[in-house]
Amino acid sequence: LKTHTFWSERSSKPLHLCGENELDGQLRALRRQLHRYPESAWTEFATTCQVISMLREMDIPVRYGREIHDEGYMHGLPGEQELERCLLRAREEGADEELLEAMRGGFTGCVAEIRGELPGPTIGIRVDMDCNDLSECTEEDHRPAVEGFSSCHRGCMHACGHDAHTAIGLGIASRLQRSRHQLRGSVILIFQPAEEGLRGAASMTAAGVVDRCEVFFSLHVGIADLPLGTVAAGAEGFLASTKFDVELEGLAAHAGLNPEMGKNAMAAAATAVLNLLAIPRHRGGASRINVGTLRAGTGRNVIPERAELTVETRGESTEVNRYMEARAKKVCQAAADMYECSCQMRYMGGAGSARCDGDLVLRAADILREVEGVEQVLERFDFGGGEDAVTMMERVQQRGGKATELVFPFALKAPHHNPRFDVDEDVMLLAVRCVTRLVLEL
Amino acid sequence: LKTHTFWSERSSKPLHLCGENELDGQLRALRRQLHRYPESAWTEFATTCQVISMLREMDIPVRYGREIHDEGYMHGLPGEQELERCLLRAREEGADEELLEAMRGGFTGCVAEIRGELPGPTIGIRVDMDCNDLSECTEEDHRPAVEGFSSCHRGCMHACGHDAHTAIGLGIASRLQRSRHQLRGSVILIFQPAEEGLRGAASMTAAGVVDRCEVFFSLHVGIADLPLGTVAAGAEGFLASTKFDVELEGLAAHAGLNPEMGKNAMAAAATAVLNLLAIPRHRGGASRINVGTLRAGTGRNVIPERAELTVETRGESTEVNRYMEARAKKVCQAAADMYECSCQMRYMGGAGSARCDGDLVLRAADILREVEGVEQVLERFDFGGGEDAVTMMERVQQRGGKATELVFPFALKAPHHNPRFDVDEDVMLLAVRCVTRLVLEL
Amino acid sequence: LKTHTFWSERSSKPLHLCGENELDGQLRALRRQLHRYPESAWTEFATTCQVISMLREMDIPVRYGREIHDEGYMHGLPGEQELERCLLRAREEGADEELLEAMRGGFTGCVAEIRGELPGPTIGIRVDMDCNDLSECTEEDHRPAVEGFSSCHRGCMHACGHDAHTAIGLGIASRLQRSRHQLRGSVILIFQPAEEGLRGAASMTAAGVVDRCEVFFSLHVGIADLPLGTVAAGAEGFLASTKFDVELEGLAAHAGLNPEMGKNAMAAAATAVLNLLAIPRHRGGASRINVGTLRAGTGRNVIPERAELTVETRGESTEVNRYMEARAKKVCQAAADMYECSCQMRYMGGAGSARCDGDLVLRAADILREVEGVEQVLERFDFGGGEDAVTMMERVQQRGGKATELVFPFALKAPHHNPRFDVDEDVMLLAVRCVTRLVLEL
Amino acid sequence: LKTHTFWSERSSKPLHLCGENELDGQLRALRRQLHRYPESAWTEFATTCQVISMLREMDIPVRYGREIHDEGYMHGLPGEQELERCLLRAREEGADEELLEAMRGGFTGCVAEIRGELPGPTIGIRVDMDCNDLSECTEEDHRPAVEGFSSCHRGCMHACGHDAHTAIGLGIASRLQRSRHQLRGSVILIFQPAEEGLRGAASMTAAGVVDRCEVFFSLHVGIADLPLGTVAAGAEGFLASTKFDVELEGLAAHAGLNPEMGKNAMAAAATAVLNLLAIPRHRGGASRINVGTLRAGTGRNVIPERAELTVETRGESTEVNRYMEARAKKVCQAAADMYECSCQMRYMGGAGSARCDGDLVLRAADILREVEGVEQVLERFDFGGGEDAVTMMERVQQRGGKATELVFPFALKAPHHNPRFDVDEDVMLLAVRCVTRLVLEL
Repeated sequence: LKTHTFWSERSSKPLHLCGENELDGQLRALRRQLHRYPESAWTEFATTCQVISMLREMDIPVRYGREIHDEGYMHGLPGEQELERCLLRAREEGADEELLEAMRGGFTGCVAEIRGELPGPTIGIRVDMDCNDLSECTEEDHRPAVEGFSSCHRGCMHACGHDAHTAIGLGIASRLQRSRHQLRGSVILIFQPAEEGLRGAASMTAAGVVDRCEVFFSLHVGIADLPLGTVAAGAEGFLASTKFDVELEGLAAHAGLNPEMGKNAMAAAATAVLNLLAIPRHRGGASRINVGTLRAGTGRNVIPERAELTVETRGESTEVNRYMEARAKKVCQAAADMYECSCQMRYMGGAGSARCDGDLVLRAADILREVEGVEQVLERFDFGGGEDAVTMMERVQQRGGKATELVFPFALKAPHHNPRFDVDEDVMLLAVRCVTRLVLEL
Repeated sequence: LKTHTFWSERSSKPLHLCGENELDGQLRALRRQLHRYPESAWTEFATTCQVISMLREMDIPVRYGREIHDEGYMHGLPGEQELERCLLRAREEGADEELLEAMRGGFTGCVAEIRGELPGPTIGIRVDMDCNDLSECTEEDHRPAVEGFSSCHRGCMHACGHDAHTAIGLGIASRLQRSRHQLRGSVILIFQPAEEGLRGAASMTAAGVVDRCEVFFSLHVGIADLPLGTVAAGAEGFLASTKFDVELEGLAAHAGLNPEMGKNAMAAAATAVLNLLAIPRHRGGASRINVGTLRAGTGRNVIPERAELTVETRGESTEVNRYMEARAKKVCQAAADMYECSCQMRYMGGAGSARCDGDLVLRAADILREVEGVEQVLERFDFGGGEDAVTMMERVQQRGGKATELVFPFALKAPHHNPRFDVDEDVMLLAVRCVTRLVLEL
Repeated sequence: LKTHTFWSERSSKPLHLCGENELDGQLRALRRQLHRYPESAWTEFATTCQVISMLREMDIPVRYGREIHDEGYMHGLPGEQELERCLLRAREEGADEELLEAMRGGFTGCVAEIRGELPGPTIGIRVDMDCNDLSECTEEDHRPAVEGFSSCHRGCMHACGHDAHTAIGLGIASRLQRSRHQLRGSVILIFQPAEEGLRGAASMTAAGVVDRCEVFFSLHVGIADLPLGTVAAGAEGFLASTKFDVELEGLAAHAGLNPEMGKNAMAAAATAVLNLLAIPRHRGGASRINVGTLRAGTGRNVIPERAELTVETRGESTEVNRYMEARAKKVCQAAADMYECSCQMRYMGGAGSARCDGDLVLRAADILREVEGVEQVLERFDFGGGEDAVTMMERVQQRGGKATELVFPFALKAPHHNPRFDVDEDVMLLAVRCVTRLVLEL
Repeated sequence: LKTHTFWSERSSKPLHLCGENELDGQLRALRRQLHRYPESAWTEFATTCQVISMLREMDIPVRYGREIHDEGYMHGLPGEQELERCLLRAREEGADEELLEAMRGGFTGCVAEIRGELPGPTIGIRVDMDCNDLSECTEEDHRPAVEGFSSCHRGCMHACGHDAHTAIGLGIASRLQRSRHQLRGSVILIFQPAEEGLRGAASMTAAGVVDRCEVFFSLHVGIADLPLGTVAAGAEGFLASTKFDVELEGLAAHAGLNPEMGKNAMAAAATAVLNLLAIPRHRGGASRINVGTLRAGTGRNVIPERAELTVETRGESTEVNRYMEARAKKVCQAAADMYECSCQMRYMGGAGSARCDGDLVLRAADILREVEGVEQVLERFDFGGGEDAVTMMERVQQRGGKATELVFPFALKAPHHNPRFDVDEDVMLLAVRCVTRLVLEL
């Protein structure tokens, strides 16, 4: 029997009372706890409870639940059963009943606010909390396996460093709370759910979470295989992206007796997959297409009646992504027509492609160069993937604010979203120091 | 809470004590009970317990468990977890613990023997018990839905009439047991598991279950849309078949950051599906190919690392089926190579293509013409699908015996393996009468 | 320079003046001449001139040109340029200018009539004259290569025995003309063009060519690999068939500069090909699908704008063929839609699936058993392919006549339509004897 | 009959004797003549004769034939028959017999040298001469159609501006010849064949044609849709590329009688096409893949025995291109294996991805700004396609020289390689002026 649960591992000393060394140890422990109990997009129940609890221990006010989301923008939610299964799992692992109730239905994540004692602007900082939908490597040379903090949730793994991001977010909160006397203005610290699939930023943004921010930082660890100590004050190459699900429905038939009576949804899906991957490159810049999952058919001797695909397109610009998306939908529809199947396509998430503000990048770079542990500061960095924070950045910029993405690389053992991905935990304290200094000195 | 279980519906009066009218009512009730609790291949736990229990009530000796199977020939077993889940479900539904223990691991099915009081040959009769892997139609005009005996096991449905076959088997047992004084020789009554996928006959045959049979009958209801009362004394057109599973394994990668690093098992699978379906027809006769299920990928933004397909080939002759199987394997291997994936193919079941013995067919036809309720007797009937009993028929014939397939058609509401399939229950008593007469008069 | 032409090889002695041995030699020489100068469907210019010339030498009246065709039914004609090229080639090879003029535009083939001196019925006999569109094997063990009568028309080859059929037709004409005194009624001897592609029978039938026939024979050599001397008096398993051409038109673009601007007709065609081959088998009987040729694209670095496919479907019954045809058109249209290409489909030929008249078969079989050289007479023979004569047979039967197909097998060196196909020339005299006897004795 | 031929249109006054206005008129006439008689790669017979003749009229020494090519590097030559056909066409159109003889076999193109009267460096200038393999638009709003200089060679069209390039090359020659007294050093003026397909540069480079060049200019008109007067002094984004042909060979069979005996090369090709287009994007930069042409099959009712594909891959870097090429070959081989076909792949051309020398670009830009008609000078320009001159540029740079690509855009009516492409002829004199000034002032 499982006696050892998420909650039983909870740390005991409020972070803002810890010195820097002690904080470092706490962040490592916290990150490993989160790594052990990863939660997928919109199901970050235990994770959010833990964060709220630790923020409250530091006397930081925190909002959560329906208040911080606009339900009309919560795309790509798991099914009700899955949401409920994950909520029950979180309860079994010791999460707070009352908080869980407030998050029921996927209203995960939270927003903290640290008010400085001096007047000044409002600064937004965003970290994300969700894991990836893959099973962690169990081989002996994978550190989480060796040191005993591998994922114990099958099919879930923190393979993008969001476990570290959450810990960094709490670390930043603790340092700012400690320095409220010298903090000018307010800091809104956003613990965002559902970054994977580019889903969570839209509903938080629509709920107005970043509306007061005059300056906005998002952050990410890893990405490029560079030595620890290299820090990017701005990034480019965010790929615009659209996520959608496809359901093909044909007609089942006995594969031996009446093959001609079937309308084969799997054949339609296979045709769609090959032709989706074959969508031509675009002169306007990098594009991507992926069919991440495909489920089709019910039994060996039945012509498959249904097929479900999860698709995503990306583009270096919004235009390129729109081209990819339009072509992809055309391909799916035609593949369905070919086999006389119906074709339902459902939007599941997406984001545009933002730009970091050049002057903010330069000012941030100047400050970062002074931070202990920083060896090199890059002003241009090729992000090369989607970043849900872009939705928040765009809103801040539309309202006249400035925004940038901070990246904290380290030597990568394996690429992101790989079963062998692991974080160099030294990056966490470095990131906490950098962001804290940026906030205090900007 | 579920208070109504398989076992609570159990009938109370031993069948051999029932008159024909009463028997008819019992068979209908039994068939509906089995329809309500369908069990898939190798997991016919509750079904077998029910059959054993009813045979024992009639004082008919019955063998079961490891004794009637040769483990080396039990292909296409579900995974251990699935076997255990189904066994627990059967227990929860009230099945006998001791019997379940004997069947643990998939050793389902049973073999009864009715010894006549007069000397004579040994006759084998085979019925099958497993359901199909599909979900039953829930619409209002589907009789099981209207009359409340729809499947309550999700993803499982008796859509091939094996529920009726099981009931017929027990009906035959009851009539023969009643008539032991005039029965010449012995009847071995085989309740075979795992007919779907052509899996169960091999291990029973290898265990010697039909070795003593001088005459052998297999039976099937439905198949052709003919009026009730038409009966076939022999069939042809059994399609030889091979079932195999394919596992493709490539390499996951972040679909946005490093698409070129992935080895896309889904793309390999899609290529395989289209090219499998495209295997050329064969001059030598009818052929079939189906990929019944396909599962690929873990998450939307990960290049799919694994794909699993369930495949079956069929052929009007063993030669045609071998051609299809050889081509199919070539296609799968090449599709894997194309994407630098590994390709594991696992044999899951199969059967050859037998012939009914002409003289047995003629003798049977003569007897059947005299049976009450029989309007027309066909001596040639196009079966047009696979029939696992063929494996038993071949063994009987190799050892010098004679074998045939009896078919009892009725007006079909929907094809076999269709979510709307239903049995005309009048066929059951007719079949019991026919087979009983054949055994007694042959 | 080519000094050796079709015409220069022409035989000199009228066939009806030859004894049987001499006739045998003449038929062999003629067949080799035709083999050397094969002409594809609707371009049998030189071949027809030769046949007409030889019929005239025997004083047999012959009709040809527009009189024997209904232009509205001449499907699948080559383009005007190709027709002209072939006509010029025939002229260069020595064919008669005046006859050529009458055939210009594809009005090839001819119809002879031999009127008996005794009263009796009108009997139709059909032979075909066109070659296949493939290049002949040039290897040393291929007899036409060794003995110097290989095709000298590139891309054209008599690989279905129509060269022998034409010679047999002339042989029959010669024997009947010799026996006019004992011939009851008339014989209409049809030298049909464009059998390949099932094209020529429709326009001749529409022109009334078989309308007077009370009895009708079509004939074919080869088909099954049986010893010479086996003869079939009737056949079954003619596959109904539809031939159509598909033109896909998209948009060209520079493959390096603007790949996204192209509408790739080749990708649409490739998708069509795989999904055409993947059309499910039909329970109702054998089906076939082939894409015989595919031409797409203009240059390596241009996104292909056009693609052309030649398609044929077949079915054991007209219903099965209609199913194949309907599915095939659906697939082509959807593949075009997928790539935003237009899709033109043009009917190019086809035939239904006829039955030989049972009583005619039996009578013919009785007569054939008496013919010298006949070892065995089959009353059922699986033709297993399309036969354009079926269109004529159906017309004869509709008008109250009887029809059958005669087959003259021999030991096959290679299958029909194969670059190594060759005819056992002994079959020709045998066929001439058989058909002559049938006509005289029926 | 054609009385109007290439040669009859020949201009009469040596270009170096023309003033600038007259030169402009002559270049326009020449370009239209070349446009009317386009010649494909390695068959620029008439074009080369015309160029040599005009160079000789200006007393400029010129080399041609085997002397300027290294046969071992002449990739992607047309077949012997095609070479001969084109040579005969050039002769019929009036080209010089003796020159043609020297070029027989594809040794087209020529190299002129203008020696200045002052000492100085050797400067190379490359223009190209071949057309594209596509048919020109015949619609009324296409200027060449309206003004009567449309291509009269079917399937051939100058759709990339090489007709203008050739005229510009002769214009430059004329101006430099006129200015020999002030020319420092020598100018090697290369009229390169077979730029399309990236074929001609390799054999000229291997023959040492650019070995003496200390400075090297290649030039191209069009590319970007920018106003006339914008000039680029350097370019980037040359895509590395590999061209190869694929021949798949299976086995023919009768599609009706023995479909299972065929080894379908067309199905293999279709599988290859879809999976080639589906090769994943590469993080390292832009990639391209195209199958430009596909020919498969011989007749409608024959399983296709052969298929031929022309393929090209491209990549923003040599590494990306190598990835594409390796994947492409893997796909072709596996597709062949799937259908038990053999697969021959033949290298047909290619080039790497060069960089223009920054300091040369800057110096050139300074000079170009002073040229009459130049409105704007770009120092960075995204070429976005392959450029065969890259092979020459690399050789010059390896030997210590400097190289750059000059681009002369104009408002594009249609993209390059499009049937509606046309050149704004004003660009020619501008280009002549620019290059002449560069050479004289550098």
